[in-house]
Amino acid sequence: MSLPADPPPVERLLGRGRGTLGELFLARAERSAERPFLRFGERTWTYEEGMWEAQRFAGWVLAQAPGGDASGMRVASFLPNRPAAMWAWLGTLLAGAVYVPLNRSHRGALLEDMVERSGARILVADRDGTDVLSRLSLTEIDTLLVVEGAAEIEFGGRLAAWEQVAASEPRTRPATDPRALAEVMYTSGTTGRSKAVLLPHNYLLRGSGWVAWSLSLREDDVVHGWLPLFHIGGQLDMVLCFIAAGGAIALHPTFSQSRFWSEVEACGATHFIGFSNVLEIIWAMESTPTDRETTLRGGIAGGIPPNLHRGFEERFDLRLYDVYGMTESEPLAFPHPGTLPPVGAAGQPNPDFELAILGESGERLPADSLGEIVARPLVPDVTFAGYEGDVEAYAEATAGLWIHTGDLGRIDEQGNAYFVDRIKHAIRRRGENISTFELERVLTAHPQVADCSAVGVPSPLGEEDVKVMVVPAPDAALDPAALREWCEKEMASFMVPRYVEVVESLPRGPTGKVLKEELVGVSESVFDAEAERFRDNADTGRVR
Amino acid sequence: MSLPADPPPVERLLGRGRGTLGELFLARAERSAERPFLRFGERTWTYEEGMWEAQRFAGWVLAQAPGGDASGMRVASFLPNRPAAMWAWLGTLLAGAVYVPLNRSHRGALLEDMVERSGARILVADRDGTDVLSRLSLTEIDTLLVVEGAAEIEFGGRLAAWEQVAASEPRTRPATDPRALAEVMYTSGTTGRSKAVLLPHNYLLRGSGWVAWSLSLREDDVVHGWLPLFHIGGQLDMVLCFIAAGGAIALHPTFSQSRFWSEVEACGATHFIGFSNVLEIIWAMESTPTDRETTLRGGIAGGIPPNLHRGFEERFDLRLYDVYGMTESEPLAFPHPGTLPPVGAAGQPNPDFELAILGESGERLPADSLGEIVARPLVPDVTFAGYEGDVEAYAEATAGLWIHTGDLGRIDEQGNAYFVDRIKHAIRRRGENISTFELERVLTAHPQVADCSAVGVPSPLGEEDVKVMVVPAPDAALDPAALREWCEKEMASFMVPRYVEVVESLPRGPTGKVLKEELVGVSESVFDAEAERFRDNADTGRVR
Repeated sequence: MSLPADPPPVERLLGRGRGTLGELFLARAERSAERPFLRFGERTWTYEEGMWEAQRFAGWVLAQAPGGDASGMRVASFLPNRPAAMWAWLGTLLAGAVYVPLNRSHRGALLEDMVERSGARILVADRDGTDVLSRLSLTEIDTLLVVEGAAEIEFGGRLAAWEQVAASEPRTRPATDPRALAEVMYTSGTTGRSKAVLLPHNYLLRGSGWVAWSLSLREDDVVHGWLPLFHIGGQLDMVLCFIAAGGAIALHPTFSQSRFWSEVEACGATHFIGFSNVLEIIWAMESTPTDRETTLRGGIAGGIPPNLHRGFEERFDLRLYDVYGMTESEPLAFPHPGTLPPVGAAGQPNPDFELAILGESGERLPADSLGEIVARPLVPDVTFAGYEGDVEAYAEATAGLWIHTGDLGRIDEQGNAYFVDRIKHAIRRRGENISTFELERVLTAHPQVADCSAVGVPSPLGEEDVKVMVVPAPDAALDPAALREWCEKEMASFMVPRYVEVVESLPRGPTGKVLKEELVGVSESVFDAEAERFRDNADTGRVR
Repeated sequence: MSLPADPPPVERLLGRGRGTLGELFLARAERSAERPFLRFGERTWTYEEGMWEAQRFAGWVLAQAPGGDASGMRVASFLPNRPAAMWAWLGTLLAGAVYVPLNRSHRGALLEDMVERSGARILVADRDGTDVLSRLSLTEIDTLLVVEGAAEIEFGGRLAAWEQVAASEPRTRPATDPRALAEVMYTSGTTGRSKAVLLPHNYLLRGSGWVAWSLSLREDDVVHGWLPLFHIGGQLDMVLCFIAAGGAIALHPTFSQSRFWSEVEACGATHFIGFSNVLEIIWAMESTPTDRETTLRGGIAGGIPPNLHRGFEERFDLRLYDVYGMTESEPLAFPHPGTLPPVGAAGQPNPDFELAILGESGERLPADSLGEIVARPLVPDVTFAGYEGDVEAYAEATAGLWIHTGDLGRIDEQGNAYFVDRIKHAIRRRGENISTFELERVLTAHPQVADCSAVGVPSPLGEEDVKVMVVPAPDAALDPAALREWCEKEMASFMVPRYVEVVESLPRGPTGKVLKEELVGVSESVFDAEAERFRDNADTGRVR
């Protein structure tokens, strides 16, 4: 199949495949003025109404800008999912300014640091958000715009109320250079300070166009949207791709299991979105005879559990689309229209990228090998432009002139990409990469294992040996040696753990993540299969 | 044609296509012990003898290293072409240390800066070189190794004489990691301070292997070599590729028109090397009936004037090979064996790279379009590893995940690459890139120069000649001829301006930038050093 050179929805709207988000918004407002754009609670905005809201925000931003020129100016936001977050985002871009969406969950010094290095002088927050912010020193912020109740807030700088925005003259002055910076988005920074990812307009424009293409989105599509608008997924895979196609976004503050189906019904959603846990939650709900009779026709997922993929599609009469990517490059892979990637695949490459799998020395591996997923852009300005103030991290993230995902995966002969695990979660044993995610998935299938975690511990032979910590199911008595024997039957020989530790519970951090670094110790009480073997040998006098 | 995965000469020698130069040297010394390696003047060293010399230097370096481990240690050299330069280079690499060859033409503050940021504690120089060095403050150098006459030199640190090297025990402790840093080489720094290019072992190893493959070099090949050993061309395209193939290098201090043919005859050269000006010079010599009867079978050229390409090959019965590349990535293109690239082409891509032509916005252009030549490595560690201490410059040089050559060119339907011009505002004079920035910095240091600007003006010999415009300091009377004489002492010979124009002020644009395009004229009133020379000649009747 020959691939289109430009994302078709973008090309149809702008007459070219390159541009800025401001141009996209204006073209869409003109084309689809009367179509629904945003639904929140009981209220719906058409594209025309929505763009007026966004343009009023743009007018307010431009009024704050010296000489009325907001290009390069930064506007930070600290907002939950609500219409104001949409207007602040779209309006900032329509003003030609740069949007810095802050994760609404952050607190304290981390948040203070992010606000400070955002380069923003304007910060938009909701009333509850200002409670969090009021404890910080926001020396760089001149103006704090509060969505409601600004009068009650104490702030050293200038306080602005949303009424000012509502009363502003609608204006636009969007960026026209596709390379222009659209947003600065912080990554989670798992190994250090969060990195400030620089996102050019053209990257977000084309990326969302390709998602719309992948899902064959139409004007009458509606997404049940709840992913946070401060994340790349919530922006690109939930809002921008629907704008590209002219569809509607039914925005919800968060995902609710109990309300999911009534929300879907209320908004007539054709698509829902989520990660594998959302699929698991929906799957676990009781079957009803009407499962196949919903308005849903597609699910946009970052990772689909292979064991329920086809069953889920069958049960709800819809199609699941795995969209694979990261803040730095979203999306990198997804199903191409008219194709059905195999179960477990993250799809085929974004036509703007070449994907490859690299080995330990950075060498390109043949099809089906396990290694790091990397990407190279085939056209300009379709990926991040760097990490602000951290060129070293950028050089590392692009070593060998490849964009490193940090993900372990493989690509099959047909070009389907498979995400397997994060590399830093992988165990390296005698030349093999072992995915702890996969190992844990196998172990969890053992009837007497309630919970488990796998880590690598330094091996006297070099590299690592595998250690697992297992929490027995209630009333189960887990014998480490027996568990190991079971493993020998159930997993590749190189994955079979040397050490097995039975514990009552796993150490977990505040977000529920297992604190793996606390698991690497190998005390006397830990079962050691190699030690057992040596004991065996000593007893019998045999030498194996 | 399917391309080999590894450069065949490297693969044949090491049994693999990846490795270090130290491994190459040792394998070659074993394989070709009795074959000639280096010829200089009347003397010839076999590979075995040459490797003993290099290993004695390695022994000396290892004796200077704390704990006898020289890995990561840096050895700088400031040497003209002579055997000691070869032993210092090969010996440093055999010791597992990092070699920093300094351009022997440099002078003054520029040279001081390069020595200082080289990270070297050991500096090797010839007797004349120490005269230049003695005027500098070399606070970072602990040991100055002088090739001859060390006793007569004053130096604040430790002085070592070459006799120490000659008396050292031959030793080797080469790097074994292909990614290990082999050399740091300064570029001319066309738009700013010279950049310190980090060259890993595997890059130099594979690059030289591909050149040997391109030229189908054999054990009985001999190169008439005169390119400086401190340049990538002199190292990779003149020495390393012949080592890879087991051929010999007849080293000469410089290129001499009058001695060229007698030198070729004396050493039995099968190959010569040079830039387009050398081809022009040889071409311009009077034809003789024996033109086709020389030992030469190939010429390695960085740029072949299209108008004399085939005529040159026909007249001298040899083949010209255009090898295209740069310090950061050498070679990027060359003729593949069994093919004859069209006249004007720089050849076909190095099999380790993908070449492309980018337009103004970084978009890939179709075949035959004119744009910037860029490259992407297809295998790891075959290009530079960065610019030391300048990750910003590295990010710029690899923008869009392409290695930017800064060269204007095109690629035809058959994949032949054509070099057309430098994009940057460098002056290109007889094979040297001259940084106008650096030239101006030196000039400004002259007490009577208030302001200045340097440009390249087309030279009748091809490429460019250097012109400077100088604004005298208040009340100073600047004599162009005297200024030129001063330049001869303060800067590399290739940087010394041909034209000097004294003006009251420089034409500047609204942002203060000098309008260089207004400076390229060479009117009667402009001092022309070459005209002076011709006048001299006219006066005396001599022809130089």
